[in-house]
Amino acid sequence: MNLKDRINEDAAKTEKLMAQYFNRKFDAPDIVVSAMQYSLFAGGKRLRPVLMMETCKGLGGNVDEVMPLACAIEMIHTYSLIHDDLPAMDNDDLRRGKPTNHKVYGENIAILAGDALLNYAFEVAIEGIPFQHIAVLNNYIKALGELSKASGVNGMIGGQTGDILSEEVRIDEAKMYYIIEHKTGALIKAAVLCGAHVAGATSQEILALTHYSEKIGMAFQILDDILDVVGDENKTGKSSGSDEKNHKTTFVSLYGIESAKVKLSELETEANEALAQIQYNTEFLSEIAHFICNRDF
Amino acid sequence: MNLKDRINEDAAKTEKLMAQYFNRKFDAPDIVVSAMQYSLFAGGKRLRPVLMMETCKGLGGNVDEVMPLACAIEMIHTYSLIHDDLPAMDNDDLRRGKPTNHKVYGENIAILAGDALLNYAFEVAIEGIPFQHIAVLNNYIKALGELSKASGVNGMIGGQTGDILSEEVRIDEAKMYYIIEHKTGALIKAAVLCGAHVAGATSQEILALTHYSEKIGMAFQILDDILDVVGDENKTGKSSGSDEKNHKTTFVSLYGIESAKVKLSELETEANEALAQIQYNTEFLSEIAHFICNRDF
Repeated sequence: MNLKDRINEDAAKTEKLMAQYFNRKFDAPDIVVSAMQYSLFAGGKRLRPVLMMETCKGLGGNVDEVMPLACAIEMIHTYSLIHDDLPAMDNDDLRRGKPTNHKVYGENIAILAGDALLNYAFEVAIEGIPFQHIAVLNNYIKALGELSKASGVNGMIGGQTGDILSEEVRIDEAKMYYIIEHKTGALIKAAVLCGAHVAGATSQEILALTHYSEKIGMAFQILDDILDVVGDENKTGKSSGSDEKNHKTTFVSLYGIESAKVKLSELETEANEALAQIQYNTEFLSEIAHFICNRDF
Repeated sequence: MNLKDRINEDAAKTEKLMAQYFNRKFDAPDIVVSAMQYSLFAGGKRLRPVLMMETCKGLGGNVDEVMPLACAIEMIHTYSLIHDDLPAMDNDDLRRGKPTNHKVYGENIAILAGDALLNYAFEVAIEGIPFQHIAVLNNYIKALGELSKASGVNGMIGGQTGDILSEEVRIDEAKMYYIIEHKTGALIKAAVLCGAHVAGATSQEILALTHYSEKIGMAFQILDDILDVVGDENKTGKSSGSDEKNHKTTFVSLYGIESAKVKLSELETEANEALAQIQYNTEFLSEIAHFICNRDF
């Protein structure tokens, strides 16, 4: 199966389970459930679930065991976008080609829908804790711990805070890397490591996949910054020029587009070097790295 | 030990563990960690941890096993207050006698600090999953599931949404009860039931404690509404008249203060009737019910 079909198949499997999680009877005002669904089913790439599933499969794990966490990470990613777009934050009007959540539902409901998605992520992830075998349980809870830390203040939220603080001020290279590694990198790393933990990865495999995921996480953000400057809004689904508007220091604003492209190529090489440390067939993880370093959306 | 000393002892035990959770090296900008601590250590009553701990102890459980969840529920309660106070929500300036989070740190950091507290609640609760005995593990995960549902869209966030939607419009009795039962009741119920699950309660005990917690949860909110009208800001630590300012329909606005006081007394009686179904010594849970129905702060 080629890359695109396989990504689509993984994404469809994630969508299906997420749809089931929303095909329940909710004991809540319709508007907040509707606002949660509006952003969650807005056609994201589902990159984090795909990475989690493919890492799990690549290491010989049972992909079904990781599915609640795959849905949870996508909900966490989505809530972060809703809050990120708020007027008090980046104040963006467009996301995935559609009006942002607060533009449709108002600021108060958007805040609550974000909170609700973060909470629902943990609800479904906790509900999905498998009790059949103690080893499976152990691995799942390791993954759950990884996810909870990656999305928190020492991970994504820390990065998001750094990003907000970097508006209107010139930041140095170290801070720029902190933001990349936390705001974007943390969840991408967690996606890979959750898949690895559920597959029962050894500590050596975890180490190699940590390197791999750090490289592709950084590449993902640097290409995002490039696309913010030169991307096609019809393809990216986001307003271009957002970083410049908010005076954000990015890899691109510090070193220029050409250096960023060189860096992307280096990161792809390093990601592949990390994969070479693993005894399993990691061809598809390598293809994902290539996709991440070369996508135009 | 009298009620006040026992509440203070439980609260101090909670504060101590929460302080440990914040006495770690954070990999995040100081401001967001500081904003989390500002609201978490602003001198709340710690009612939810106290309820959880006392239910656990009352049913013969080991209180240490419930402590991560006791801290988590207080973090969840605190994040909900931070977001609730935001300009786009209730727009309150005063909380627990101090300027609200966004007044001190700005709206963007307050949103992130709230997100971070919600996430950290799950981080510490997941980190605290006990692996020693399968029965202990089972009970803890039952409690964790209870907490995650209570704080989510079918619980507190649903209630908060209902509350926001009720501003500026007249709502009926059913909606008013929905808001009370979800916005305030859900977490109070979860506090009691988490304590019960960790203590290994039977389904009969869970049923009785469900009734107990529903009664005191409703009483808590009705007294809050009374205090919003006639309370002393120096004691409550909140701006009075907030409900009237936001044109909120409350039990008090629908039926008046006198009826609300009668209702409180009925709820206390019903809470005690529920406790009578339990074979353990529930004297202290009864005292807490009395406190909740008669406090002036």
